[in-house]
Amino acid sequence: MLAPVNSAEISVVERRDRLRLFRTAHIGPVTWRELMDHFGSATDAIAALPDFAGRAGRKRFEVVSETEAEAELERLAALDAKAITLGEPGYPEPLAAIDNPPPFLAVRGHLAHLARTGIAIVGARNASANGRRIAETIATDLASDPAVTVVSGLARGIDAAAHSGAICDGGSTVAAMAGGIDTVYPPENEVLYHDIVAHGAAVSEMPPGLAPRSKHFPRRNRIVSGLSLAVVVIEAARKSGSLITARLAGEQGRPVLAVPGSPLDPRAYGANHLIREGAVLVRDAEDVFEAVRPMLAAETEPPERPATRRPATILDLDVPNDKVRESVVACLSPEPVAVDEIVRRCQLTAPIVRTILLELELAGRLERHPGNRVAAC
Amino acid sequence: MLAPVNSAEISVVERRDRLRLFRTAHIGPVTWRELMDHFGSATDAIAALPDFAGRAGRKRFEVVSETEAEAELERLAALDAKAITLGEPGYPEPLAAIDNPPPFLAVRGHLAHLARTGIAIVGARNASANGRRIAETIATDLASDPAVTVVSGLARGIDAAAHSGAICDGGSTVAAMAGGIDTVYPPENEVLYHDIVAHGAAVSEMPPGLAPRSKHFPRRNRIVSGLSLAVVVIEAARKSGSLITARLAGEQGRPVLAVPGSPLDPRAYGANHLIREGAVLVRDAEDVFEAVRPMLAAETEPPERPATRRPATILDLDVPNDKVRESVVACLSPEPVAVDEIVRRCQLTAPIVRTILLELELAGRLERHPGNRVAAC
Repeated sequence: MLAPVNSAEISVVERRDRLRLFRTAHIGPVTWRELMDHFGSATDAIAALPDFAGRAGRKRFEVVSETEAEAELERLAALDAKAITLGEPGYPEPLAAIDNPPPFLAVRGHLAHLARTGIAIVGARNASANGRRIAETIATDLASDPAVTVVSGLARGIDAAAHSGAICDGGSTVAAMAGGIDTVYPPENEVLYHDIVAHGAAVSEMPPGLAPRSKHFPRRNRIVSGLSLAVVVIEAARKSGSLITARLAGEQGRPVLAVPGSPLDPRAYGANHLIREGAVLVRDAEDVFEAVRPMLAAETEPPERPATRRPATILDLDVPNDKVRESVVACLSPEPVAVDEIVRRCQLTAPIVRTILLELELAGRLERHPGNRVAAC
Repeated sequence: MLAPVNSAEISVVERRDRLRLFRTAHIGPVTWRELMDHFGSATDAIAALPDFAGRAGRKRFEVVSETEAEAELERLAALDAKAITLGEPGYPEPLAAIDNPPPFLAVRGHLAHLARTGIAIVGARNASANGRRIAETIATDLASDPAVTVVSGLARGIDAAAHSGAICDGGSTVAAMAGGIDTVYPPENEVLYHDIVAHGAAVSEMPPGLAPRSKHFPRRNRIVSGLSLAVVVIEAARKSGSLITARLAGEQGRPVLAVPGSPLDPRAYGANHLIREGAVLVRDAEDVFEAVRPMLAAETEPPERPATRRPATILDLDVPNDKVRESVVACLSPEPVAVDEIVRRCQLTAPIVRTILLELELAGRLERHPGNRVAAC
């Protein structure tokens, strides 16, 4: 797994600027990383941004202020939360390896839990007593391995049962939160949240105080699966968030494991469906360990990394002319299209296309979608 | 699928002699077919048998008498049961294609049901109400296709639910019986049995009046899967007969489909286990049809058959000398060994080895095992 930028200690100013960059409108995780790969530091990227955005027609481009970012970092410090940016030592490697890793993570609890091998357990909020019991038992048994942490999303039902099961016997758990690091949702999980902070870790990419809205849950889900070597699905209804997590896990190259149920039980729909689609059927922690063991072995091999992480050709340094820019715009529509497809259709080099897409995004004219796809907006 | 002998109308005498051959001690389905392939008719095989057996040290070899076989056929006629031998027109082709097809079948009900595409449904005798409901619903929906018949073993639980479900809405079902064609086991399925005979078919390779013993159930199971294009397993406990049927189905090249259940339900063990081993997870008849559709398409292509079905080299016409015979005997042990392995180790031709094995079997010194394996006894 490749870290997206040099994994190195950074200055207080650079960490603050990385946060400024991430909190700026139109800069999502993918753009953040492109800018970092190109400019090498957030401070340099911020200096260049207004010019970039201006080329795609945006008159005024404002980066979040130093004061705002410093206030957020102070608020986190008051919560005894650590701030860690993508590329710093300690940033979880499996999460760094996904397409759109969070550039910034707030962490409450113990960073050491993020260094363990994550196995996610997710499922229905309205889980049955049996489903919760299965989640709890599997979590307890997985977390009995000191190298493992059970990852979930602090939701009702299966998530809560997984976190509880993991810590009930002294094991480790990590909760990825949809809102800010201090904003527990649902409120009924407040006690569980404090247990997790005391005996594991909670993480969030959102500013403290943010109450989660519906759009934040899929983002949270990508962190749950991103932190994990594999995702176990228990009781997921048709069209549920758990199925979205499973799909994301698949896209991230993380195996999906599923606990089956009777076809007469509507809560079994999702897991049975996933098994039909190729997910491994698991009945207990032993089955889960059996499925992840080959991956654990692969993980211990030292990862191959290029000597220099900063690719020279990711963006084009020349300013693209208007004709070239318009040919890229002509390839865009509200329906997401792959960046590779645009490169092929425009017959331009990849760095030029990426540069133009970046300009358009900063100008608020482009949206990123999973799988390196983009759409006009 | 190859028919084992010429599929042709036969005389009354030949049918009687085929039954005599099959009812004779030490002649199982595999040997029966080797003799038929070699001699071309049961009448000729019976004439040659004492000599064959004598060469392997058996002094007296008695074939079942004409009178006995005729009595069995008369008893079947009195039950209005048809007698059909392997190789006759109307013998079910998928059953003829297994390693050890029954040389003789008694059939009550309508032969036409045996010409339909069989799909087996098997499972626990002590099935739950939910399991029986699933079996019934899948059977009703499968049998709503006029080309399909639902095959099962007339046992308690899932089997009975499958037969009932198939006929409740006017569909077709076939019951393979462990005992004689007139010997209903368990007795509580007497009414169901008569319904099956009225609206489907019951088949048995055993003599009428035979009460089934434990050794007869695995033989029945091979007929259930042998008659079927695929086998659906619902609620099978660890080490259950249904798992044996599933294993046999796999050996016969018939896909195994399984309905999952909660890991907390011990009855789900077998089906979940089979899915982990590669069985297709099915939730309803639609899933079953989806799984068998590619096979149905393959089935409608005309099968390739050699112009002459009788292979010239299956046995060796020369009498093997004692030294050669002893080298084959030396390869045998109580642990089953593959016939191919014996051929390789003895450096003899396959026809000679098969001839010697046949002599030994007729002399009661050899047992046949699945997968073309043999053992000393």
